[in-house]
This record gives sequence, C-alpha cells and structure tokens, in this order.
Amino acid sequence: MKAAVWYGKEDVRIEDVPVPGVGAGQVKVKIAACGVCGSDLHEYYSGPFVIPSRPHPLTGRSCGPLILGHEFSGEVTEVGEGVQGLAVGERVTVNPLIYCGRCHYCLKGEHIMCTKLGTVGFAWDGAFAEHVVVPSYGVLKLPDTVTDEMGATIEPLAVAIHAVNRSGMKTGDNVAIIGAGPIGLFVLQACKAAGAGHVYVVEPMKARLDTAARTGAHAVFDPTAVDAGKEIAGLTGGLRADIAFDCVGNQASFDTAVKVTGRRAKICVVGLALKPIQVPFIRLWGHEKQIRFSSGYQDEFSTAIAYLEDGRVRVDDLITGHISLDDLVEHGIKELKEHPDKHVKILVHP
Amino acid sequence: MKAAVWYGKEDVRIEDVPVPGVGAGQVKVKIAACGVCGSDLHEYYSGPFVIPSRPHPLTGRSCGPLILGHEFSGEVTEVGEGVQGLAVGERVTVNPLIYCGRCHYCLKGEHIMCTKLGTVGFAWDGAFAEHVVVPSYGVLKLPDTVTDEMGATIEPLAVAIHAVNRSGMKTGDNVAIIGAGPIGLFVLQACKAAGAGHVYVVEPMKARLDTAARTGAHAVFDPTAVDAGKEIAGLTGGLRADIAFDCVGNQASFDTAVKVTGRRAKICVVGLALKPIQVPFIRLWGHEKQIRFSSGYQDEFSTAIAYLEDGRVRVDDLITGHISLDDLVEHGIKELKEHPDKHVKILVHP
Repeated sequence: MKAAVWYGKEDVRIEDVPVPGVGAGQVKVKIAACGVCGSDLHEYYSGPFVIPSRPHPLTGRSCGPLILGHEFSGEVTEVGEGVQGLAVGERVTVNPLIYCGRCHYCLKGEHIMCTKLGTVGFAWDGAFAEHVVVPSYGVLKLPDTVTDEMGATIEPLAVAIHAVNRSGMKTGDNVAIIGAGPIGLFVLQACKAAGAGHVYVVEPMKARLDTAARTGAHAVFDPTAVDAGKEIAGLTGGLRADIAFDCVGNQASFDTAVKVTGRRAKICVVGLALKPIQVPFIRLWGHEKQIRFSSGYQDEFSTAIAYLEDGRVRVDDLITGHISLDDLVEHGIKELKEHPDKHVKILVHP
Repeated sequence: MKAAVWYGKEDVRIEDVPVPGVGAGQVKVKIAACGVCGSDLHEYYSGPFVIPSRPHPLTGRSCGPLILGHEFSGEVTEVGEGVQGLAVGERVTVNPLIYCGRCHYCLKGEHIMCTKLGTVGFAWDGAFAEHVVVPSYGVLKLPDTVTDEMGATIEPLAVAIHAVNRSGMKTGDNVAIIGAGPIGLFVLQACKAAGAGHVYVVEPMKARLDTAARTGAHAVFDPTAVDAGKEIAGLTGGLRADIAFDCVGNQASFDTAVKVTGRRAKICVVGLALKPIQVPFIRLWGHEKQIRFSSGYQDEFSTAIAYLEDGRVRVDDLITGHISLDDLVEHGIKELKEHPDKHVKILVHP
C-alpha cells in the first residue's frame, strides 16, 4: 500500500509499504480521510518531537521510519481475534492514544497522563496510508450524519473539548480566545457547544479573524490595531473575560490572555510554549486568577461525535483543502506552513 | 486610648488618641489580643503597601496616620444604631474586610474581589489599640472554648482555609507545603482539618521544620540538604504531591513546587511574589498542572472558628510571644524580622 513515511527532519517519503497485519485485539481501517495537523509540521520541520527518540515502552518504535497521520476516519476492513462490538464495513474514527491501562492514571481513566503514553502516527504507524491497524479500544463508530470528512476532524475537535473541560468553563462564562489558528477555531465552536456566554477572538491575521466571525465569534479583535483588553472590558461592563484560551503559546499571547481576563478568571494554555514564560504573579495573585494547561484529550471523542451529529459544531468552513497522499508534503505540510492565512484543516484522501 | 499609629516607613508611634465613636451599623470592640502579621512588617519596612496611597473609595483614608492591626479578638463594648444580633459583653473576632456590597463580586459573595476593597488596619483604624470600631457585618461571636488568644489567630487561619478552598484540594490528596513560616504552618493544619492525605513540608530553617513536624507534618525536608522532589516521589510511589502550596513566593519556592508535584497537580500560590516568575510552561503543559492564586479570605472565619472550637486545629504551638502595645515595634515587628526561626505568631495585648 502507499504511505507517507517519516525518516527524519524534512524527510517524509511517499512509499509502497506492506499492508499491516491484524493482531489480536486490533482492527484494520481503510482510510477515507486524514487531517494534516500542526504536530505533523513540527515533526517534519524539527522532529523527532513527539516521535520517540528511544524505543517506546509500549510499541518499541523510535525515530522512524514511521507512518505519520493521527486525525482520521475510515471503514473497518478486518477485525482481530477477541475484538467485540466492531464489524467489517462499519464507518469509524479512532482515538489514537495508546496507553498501558495499568498505571495510576489509566486506572482513573486519565489516559492522556499514562506514564507510557504513545500515539498512533507518532509511536505507531499512522493514517497517512491506505490502511492503518490500531488497538480496538480506540475505535469509535460514526453515525450516518457524520461524513468521512467530518470524521477526520473529530480528533482536533476532541482537543478543543478537552481544553474546555480542563479550563473549568461554566455555562454563561464570557470567553476570550487568543489565536484563531486551527486549535483556536475549534475551541471557539467547542465553547459555544458547551454553553459559553459571549466568545471573543483575538488574532492578528485578517483571514483567520474573518473565519472566526463567520463561525460564531461575537466579536473579533486584531491586537496590532486595538487594545483587546479595553475592547473586551467595554463589552463586558468592565468585567473582562471569565475564561481565556491561549491557543498560541508564547509570551505575547499569554500577556494578552492576562490582559483580557478579569478577577478570578481562568487562563487555559492550549498552545505549546517551548520557552519559559514570564508570569506577573502579583497581578494574578491579587485577582486570584488561575492558569490551567490542556495538552490533549482522553474520552472527548464521543462528545465530539455528538456535537457533529446534530450540527452543534459545523466544520465545513474549517476544511480548506483536499489533497492526495502524493501531495502531502508539497500541498499539505508546506502549504500550511507558507499560507496559514488560507487554511485551517487540509484533508488527505489516500 | 493608647494605639500604635503608622505615620510612614519605619515610623510607627505608640500614642494617645481619642477613643473612636460608634456610628450606625458599627460596633466598638475592646481588644483582648491582636497578632502581628507579615503584612504589618511590610508596612513598617516598605509601606505604604496595602495602606492606600490615595484616599480609599470607601473609607477616605490614605497614607496615615493610621492605626495598624487586623488579627484580633475582644469584647463588644458598644453597639451602634441598627445593629442586630450583637450585644455588649460578647466575645468576638472580626473579619476585617470592608467592601461595597454592591459590585459584581460582592453580589456573588466574593467580597475579597470587591473592586473597592479595604481592610481594617490598612484603610481603616485597626486593633493595635485599646479599642477598635468596625462595621458590624464583619463581627463574629466566639464560642467559650475559643480563648481570646485563639481568637486572634482566626484571621491567619482563615487565610489558610481560603488557600485550601482555592487550591481545589480533595480529601486524600497528598500535599506539599513550601515554606513553614506562619502562613505555611497554618496551611499545614488547614489541610489536615480539610482531610488531606499526607502532608509534607519543605523549609530550610530547622526550627520551623521542627514546628511543622510537631504540628502534624508527615515528613519534613530541608531543600538545602536533600532533593525534596525525589524524597516526596519516594514516599508516594513516584506520584509526588497532588497539591503544593507555595507559601513563600519567589522563584526558588515556585521551582520547588513544580518539582515536588506530579501529573495533573495543582500549585496554589499563597505567598506574594513581587517580581515576575519564570514558569516552564512546557513541563506544566505536558502534565496538565494548574497554577492557582490565593490572596485572602471571604467567609472562612466561621470555618476557622469551628476548627478551633473542637480542637481540629491547635494554635498553642504557633503562639510564640506575648507583648504589650508599647513593645510592638521593638519586641514585635523587629523581633519577627530578626528572629524568624524563633517565632510564628506574636500577640499584642493592649
């Protein structure tokens, strides 16, 4: 079968590889669509990053060659020994987490905290391929109203729903989203689906602001043109936002999150900041703010499916490109890097 | 009457001042005991700090002269017009917050967030005096089993209980306390009263570690002698603490709080860090930790009274000195500054 294989930094090759066999407790899925994620760009431009440098404790994989791709939908084509509740021909998506099931965190259902955590597409061959084989515990069926394209957006939507859960957002809370890239735009819809009050988006790129406005933001602000803190204060009777999501992850975006939030607000950091951030403790202390961090998902896939099933979340506007597997590097990874204003989610159809 | 009046930095005078009159809605209290607080030291050595520099919006007071003292107990000696439920002769303590009662936060009961907040002893004449007059809404009666001395520790105990509430600690959580000064030692007892699992204390000063061990810590660590993170990991099967309280408020204490806590832990910052703190977002993100801030109290005084009433919290070991009002500066403020190893709480008996 054809697959996109990561060999190292800036070295992803479209190759013919053997179709993987199906072991006990595993399921083979014929890929319908697989989204290109910021994490794939990280691996391409500066990996190995999530790809393990040493043999992974659960999968044994390290440093490539390894097939990328972890946001996908498809059809079950083979079911391994002992797998129950799944049959050939069913349309599915897959929670790509691979976890031990036995550590302190797994036993509490906090699989994202598993001390041996791995992910399909990083520590196990992924879905930029015609077929993928995965542990059956991550496989979820798709309802008829959730198309294959929608199915490939369930993973990033789960990231956003997890962020909402981790943030402690309550219904009616006014929310500020810093950064309207793919994560920010999914968080916007996840907040509205979870009952936020007004949702404000702060982002310098005009095309992204337009998408935010079109997909449900109550107001959008370009922080290079206006003082977003004052604007949001004006719209909230001086109270500012109850919750901010930092969907960028750098000093400027965090500083904005501090400015746009009010007393006892919660700042949820979703974007990954590689460098330490300077935090003005005295300001946060006096206002008893909180800083929370959200790094993935655990069981939010079924919530994402429910939101897509009845239209509470719509992803049509967020899917901005369809490409073949052969075009993954040139028209997927490089296109997203060079034209972030034109794209949210590009889907690969192997 | 005799009172300790703050005139400016390093200028607190013991003077004769008029006994204050009692207005409508106010209560006069004859002071039995009033604790010397770190905040009093701040005002003495580098104020005005909490003392307002401009006229306070509720009290009109600014920059002194002003009577310090906000941790106190005493006896009601006069009751103003319209005050109900309080009578002359009753033993009381006082929640010293002065708030507007009408802003967004007051209406939710979050008085510490009042946009006009003031405090008796900082923006209103306090209790380092023979008498104090306060708004009646802050006055709480003391049960017979709570002595006057215990009554003067209710305010710092309320700070500690509020920190536990803000931290999100659950029963059974293992807790690390960074810093065993007065705040840390009260937090230690508040955690145990609220059902913590094991409580570990990290503090370089031997006398303070001894007090922590004597007042309920399961294990104590001197961070200059051992790696507290590894020690606590060893005692928790590698999980480290679920909750850390940073009761110091500087870069080193926060770094220790990061090290001693495990995945999904909450770090509650109680000590005031004046300088920005460098926070390793990537470490906190991957482990989905939280940073919370706790800056005072709101309605925790009645909880503190309940804990003292039946002995769930014992403060005998935390009261390390009794002085007269004349000795406030030399044997109170300066003694605490120069001999932090010898003292937790010094009480003034006017």
